[in-house]
Amino acid sequence: MMDPGVVEILKSIVGPDNVLSDQESLVCYSFDATRYTSQPEVVVKPRSAEEVAGVVALAYEEGIPVTPRGAGTGLSGGSVPVQGGIVVSMERMNSPAVIHKEDLYAVVEAGVVTEHLQRDAEAKRLFYPPDPASQAACTIGGNIGECAGGLRGLKYGTTKNYVLGLEIVTPEGRLTRTGARTVKSVAGYDVTRLMVGSEGTLGIVTSAVLRLLPLPRARRVIAGRFKDITSAAEAVAEITASGLVPSILEIMDDKTVEAVGAFLKESLGDGVLLLAEFDGAKSLCEEEASKALEILNGRQGGAIEDDVKGKKSAKLWEARRAALPALTRLCTTVILEDVTVPRSMLPDMVNKITRIAGKYDVGVAVFGHAGDGNIHPTFLTDRRNPDELKRVDAAIAEMMGASIDLGGTVSGEHGIGLDKMPFLKLEIGKAGYEIMKRVKGSLDPGGIMNPGKMFYDS
Amino acid sequence: MMDPGVVEILKSIVGPDNVLSDQESLVCYSFDATRYTSQPEVVVKPRSAEEVAGVVALAYEEGIPVTPRGAGTGLSGGSVPVQGGIVVSMERMNSPAVIHKEDLYAVVEAGVVTEHLQRDAEAKRLFYPPDPASQAACTIGGNIGECAGGLRGLKYGTTKNYVLGLEIVTPEGRLTRTGARTVKSVAGYDVTRLMVGSEGTLGIVTSAVLRLLPLPRARRVIAGRFKDITSAAEAVAEITASGLVPSILEIMDDKTVEAVGAFLKESLGDGVLLLAEFDGAKSLCEEEASKALEILNGRQGGAIEDDVKGKKSAKLWEARRAALPALTRLCTTVILEDVTVPRSMLPDMVNKITRIAGKYDVGVAVFGHAGDGNIHPTFLTDRRNPDELKRVDAAIAEMMGASIDLGGTVSGEHGIGLDKMPFLKLEIGKAGYEIMKRVKGSLDPGGIMNPGKMFYDS
Repeated sequence: MMDPGVVEILKSIVGPDNVLSDQESLVCYSFDATRYTSQPEVVVKPRSAEEVAGVVALAYEEGIPVTPRGAGTGLSGGSVPVQGGIVVSMERMNSPAVIHKEDLYAVVEAGVVTEHLQRDAEAKRLFYPPDPASQAACTIGGNIGECAGGLRGLKYGTTKNYVLGLEIVTPEGRLTRTGARTVKSVAGYDVTRLMVGSEGTLGIVTSAVLRLLPLPRARRVIAGRFKDITSAAEAVAEITASGLVPSILEIMDDKTVEAVGAFLKESLGDGVLLLAEFDGAKSLCEEEASKALEILNGRQGGAIEDDVKGKKSAKLWEARRAALPALTRLCTTVILEDVTVPRSMLPDMVNKITRIAGKYDVGVAVFGHAGDGNIHPTFLTDRRNPDELKRVDAAIAEMMGASIDLGGTVSGEHGIGLDKMPFLKLEIGKAGYEIMKRVKGSLDPGGIMNPGKMFYDS
Repeated sequence: MMDPGVVEILKSIVGPDNVLSDQESLVCYSFDATRYTSQPEVVVKPRSAEEVAGVVALAYEEGIPVTPRGAGTGLSGGSVPVQGGIVVSMERMNSPAVIHKEDLYAVVEAGVVTEHLQRDAEAKRLFYPPDPASQAACTIGGNIGECAGGLRGLKYGTTKNYVLGLEIVTPEGRLTRTGARTVKSVAGYDVTRLMVGSEGTLGIVTSAVLRLLPLPRARRVIAGRFKDITSAAEAVAEITASGLVPSILEIMDDKTVEAVGAFLKESLGDGVLLLAEFDGAKSLCEEEASKALEILNGRQGGAIEDDVKGKKSAKLWEARRAALPALTRLCTTVILEDVTVPRSMLPDMVNKITRIAGKYDVGVAVFGHAGDGNIHPTFLTDRRNPDELKRVDAAIAEMMGASIDLGGTVSGEHGIGLDKMPFLKLEIGKAGYEIMKRVKGSLDPGGIMNPGKMFYDS
């Protein structure tokens, strides 16, 4: 229960309408897209960087935990306020992006919805590539906090590759900028990149300078169908090893394909789907798509839909982005995992996932960004069944170990948050963990910025 | 003068032949490619990461400054041991890179010469793009410490875009890894990117996991000649604003062109040279080169050498990379500066450089990576003339201010080191400076890792 005096000061900072203490609101801001929930004591909705700084400075003085929040679509617990305190929702900091066409960058407030930025860029024949599946809802600030990936990571990288500079509020409530508006800058430490993927534990991003690219002139989508997921994973490995660089290269297993068909009320057929897109100059797209089709033809045993144009290709991507929503219809609790291995290890990892799911007798659907070795095993379970949940957690732990053994990482794009805390030290080792904790301690001496995340005893 | 007991222990760590205390050696390791020099007390040349860790652990215990060194080609003073102590030269850690072709990465020791990695990659039809002009001599470790750029930055980015993971020795002498071997990983803070460009002040890089790309199938080089540098800069701005993405886009002013002609004993003609390269699929290169030539044709007033093929294009790039060596023949002291502004501001910046040089009556040649707004005004002076040097320093300070005013940075690719220390806080502000100093303090509590660089009172 927040001190009424503090609530009054918060109201004076952001305005009384933008301070929420009623129970219904507190519940709304207590969860993200994971199974974790925890109520804040109060929610504030600032409209400017100065207001954010005022709120954090107050929290620092009073020793109150602060949890920044975008749209709450996160997949690792980053915006769940596990120690109560103040949730700072960035939703009102959403002025339209200012696009600098000649210099290929945009200045964007943290609460801007990712898809809105993409559309504004496209209107000027520019391109903001990072495209998390939740892009119609998620925000730039959240993307930066979690270093969001997306379908285009294979060719275009992820959010970290597009952040030129930031405006941030430090854990002591100071407003400052990092980075530059230029493509190249080496003025001191790369604090910008330290902030990207820091999951709201080192400060609050209020706005960002984001790199844009010229819009690709053409796109070509192809699809292939496979009997089983290992064959599809092998085809993916062959495509990437051949030197082709599709802009998107995705897999959806048969469970996912079926669920999506039911969800969208339009069957996608059976089997495992491989979806790929090539972008760039028209002639080049055609050339690369043909080469990829040759590879698919040499391997799989079912119909290939190579002529995926216009509406049909939009539908295919809609289907891919509907994977998680579709799977949530199948059971009470869906736990989306996120393993990444070197591309050549993908068939191995996929086999291990199948084997581990069988070993623990848990239901798993698999889909994801196969082209960069980043796959999402999705557990279909029921949190009200503690025995099954135990088996799911055991399966997840074994998958994390398998990923590391294959030279991979425990988190390709969803972050550590709450979900991966048990595995972080396993991957980075004692000395690496120590480095991160020291950086955290030096920048957040009050320990108020999104506490209880990433590190134990933080 | 190093404690003889410490020297003995160093000998037991790296072997007696790899510890240098004689005066001649100390002089050799006292400078880089700037005007700054300072002698170390001893130089060690380790052969393994464990040896590096042993040396640093000893230094930490004894409170002895440590300065890591690659090939000493740095342009901001990073490897000059301003507080004496131990220079750790990474030159013997140069085993050939291990290239993982299927997964598009290489594991490379810090002492490997950049060009050697590029050649080993090319032999497998792969591509390591960062190409500092000093690539025939500089090392991967130095590139990482300084976040080296190069000619290909416009299309391919810089060193920071290629470091997937590192093996480092911390300032307390602990050996640890950062990052991953996968393209995507968000396991905790991006310590890898914190290390890149940290100029040897946060630890010593012993080896790196570097991302590789498929080798572009074709390259097409074009050149244009201009009466003056502003016209050339405007042509550059038009090319980048048109949506074209050359892999290289460089300028050499008339002073530089003349100096290079004399140096290579083969005239390049008169005037200002614009050099550009397009790479990728053959048909695409042709298309893009033609578009660029149209732009040049519409603007400049001299011969265009559009048909730059084979040996001729190799010669042109040799000429560009000879810019600095050529200019050093003209005078006693050459001071290479490094300003970067948003691309559209390049003509303005170039004008300001000309005006400032005139105002302070100092000789300046200008060349550089015009395509990404990163230009190298090069002062031709004599360090034995204190009055002239004062005017040069005043001119530099005014250029730094002009760069920031145009929305740019004081260091595009050379780092802060010693050279830009007076300007760092100007660009990043008090709070930003504080953040960096705290990170430094938390990771190097002994203050031994390349002290006297980047920050005052470090």
